[in-house]
Amino acid sequence: MNAFDPRPPFYLGIDLGGTNIKSGVVEDTGRPLSSVSIETEADRGPEVGIENLAKAGRLAVEASGLRWDQISGVGLGSPGTMDLSRGMLLQPPNLPGWNQLPIRDLLAAKLDKPTILQNDANAAAYGEYWAGAGRNTRSLVLFTLGTGVGCGIITEGRIIEGRHSHGGECGHIIVQMENGRRCGCGAYGHLEAYASATALVKRAHDLLSEGSMKSVLREIPPDDLTSRAISEAADAGDPAARRLMKETAFYLAVGTVTLLHTIDPDIVLFGGGMIAAGQGFLEDIRQHVQKMAFPAVAKGTRIDYAELGGDAGFIGAAGCARDAFGR
Amino acid sequence: MNAFDPRPPFYLGIDLGGTNIKSGVVEDTGRPLSSVSIETEADRGPEVGIENLAKAGRLAVEASGLRWDQISGVGLGSPGTMDLSRGMLLQPPNLPGWNQLPIRDLLAAKLDKPTILQNDANAAAYGEYWAGAGRNTRSLVLFTLGTGVGCGIITEGRIIEGRHSHGGECGHIIVQMENGRRCGCGAYGHLEAYASATALVKRAHDLLSEGSMKSVLREIPPDDLTSRAISEAADAGDPAARRLMKETAFYLAVGTVTLLHTIDPDIVLFGGGMIAAGQGFLEDIRQHVQKMAFPAVAKGTRIDYAELGGDAGFIGAAGCARDAFGR
Repeated sequence: MNAFDPRPPFYLGIDLGGTNIKSGVVEDTGRPLSSVSIETEADRGPEVGIENLAKAGRLAVEASGLRWDQISGVGLGSPGTMDLSRGMLLQPPNLPGWNQLPIRDLLAAKLDKPTILQNDANAAAYGEYWAGAGRNTRSLVLFTLGTGVGCGIITEGRIIEGRHSHGGECGHIIVQMENGRRCGCGAYGHLEAYASATALVKRAHDLLSEGSMKSVLREIPPDDLTSRAISEAADAGDPAARRLMKETAFYLAVGTVTLLHTIDPDIVLFGGGMIAAGQGFLEDIRQHVQKMAFPAVAKGTRIDYAELGGDAGFIGAAGCARDAFGR
Repeated sequence: MNAFDPRPPFYLGIDLGGTNIKSGVVEDTGRPLSSVSIETEADRGPEVGIENLAKAGRLAVEASGLRWDQISGVGLGSPGTMDLSRGMLLQPPNLPGWNQLPIRDLLAAKLDKPTILQNDANAAAYGEYWAGAGRNTRSLVLFTLGTGVGCGIITEGRIIEGRHSHGGECGHIIVQMENGRRCGCGAYGHLEAYASATALVKRAHDLLSEGSMKSVLREIPPDDLTSRAISEAADAGDPAARRLMKETAFYLAVGTVTLLHTIDPDIVLFGGGMIAAGQGFLEDIRQHVQKMAFPAVAKGTRIDYAELGGDAGFIGAAGCARDAFGR
């Protein structure tokens, strides 16, 4: 066997999203051998959806060049509220109608493989831990910055799942208990209400409407304003956009400090669409953490961007299958 | 052997405080067989202090009626910054001059027993987990409400120690990132700056000085005002004291929600002097958590007072020795 031969055992990871399903086969080292993406068609209901999950999985195995019987197990990452031990989706907001769904067992029956369910943000954290920016660590926090703020926590090589499968829901830690912004979940003062891409755009609208600050952002039709446009305007020197990005870095540093003083992990990672903002944004987060965290923690904790991008979810889901079925 | 016979193996727990050292022998079930307390004499330096730790340990074994050779190991709980894996105190604020002290190995040499060092708040959490209000759970968060807000976290039966021995330092999570109160540690907006006994007294001074609110607290000389006096005045119906206690319950609920959405433990406990405030105070915390936490978590997580009182530290330290040396 040379270095490029695939190394068994092999696991199939499937990352279920509201819009797309991503799937790939991953070898024992964490290297993905294939990657496919198809539409979820979530609005066609769970039956079609599960058929699509199975289809994505079969295509990924085909694309890997392996035979179906070479796959040792399947990991499924999913958004929404769930009961991990029972493998159930409870009430996923992005998958309307997929309520009280025994998704793990339905998929296991379709694929005839041992299957495990994991929260998508937890799976992404596990992916980075296994094969990404967190490899060679024992504990890790990953914040995924997108529409919301996803989070997954690993300590001693294990995902903190929690009693109600709500471990690592750190988009919903309270960073501002008095006069806090309203979060997408309905509560107030959550990290996500300040630091998600959605929150950034909202704060931009607030800033533009309240003041007379000059900004190229005013030239963008309000409905077209995106976090990417803000980040690019900041890079081009626009003062309003710069201020918004600096504030976002501060909010993320606040959340990071709370996690550092709770978990004290080896590494804190940021992933998701917003990390397109680049090294300056990361440096701003680091500097705020330096000022706010306990000295030993501030000095000794690596803070970095995630490495696996959109593949973290299926790689991590495959890693969860390896953890569950591979030993 | 009948139910009252001590059950081997036996562990010696020692809880080092800035003022007193508490020690006791604990049997395999978590039941303490003895409990002694002597002065730390911290200001006489670490050499005297370590002699006093050893003395407290020996007295506890004597008081238990066991022979020294029946003790399988020693657990030491200590305040301050430390390096748990190396068994070192780094810079404990309440033990001035005890810096860079290899306290674990010094004590082990004095007692000639395998010895483990643990953070005092972590040890207390482990005590409640093993033998107190958290027995029969797998994960737990304990907040200890005193001069500061101590915290310890157990998940899957293990203490979250963290890379820099700063796991579970949740008195220093950020609950108010803008215009936050100054914490004893020098940073701003920490839970401890709102919810410790010290913070409660500070907030009382602020409330009394800023307004014309009538209160029996005004009859107490400012330097004699304590959290207990405030809690008792609240019980007696004093409006200012009631408001202060209600606010404290809210702050603790905020910290609790952040931990519920991070760890999602089986149970959250409150210990320390302030729980003398009684069931009404606990009920206020519970009600705020009900309103602020995710429904499944709010509904399914037990929130309660700790049971072991001032013995939690040495019982938990003994439990850590059992965990390290007993299997």
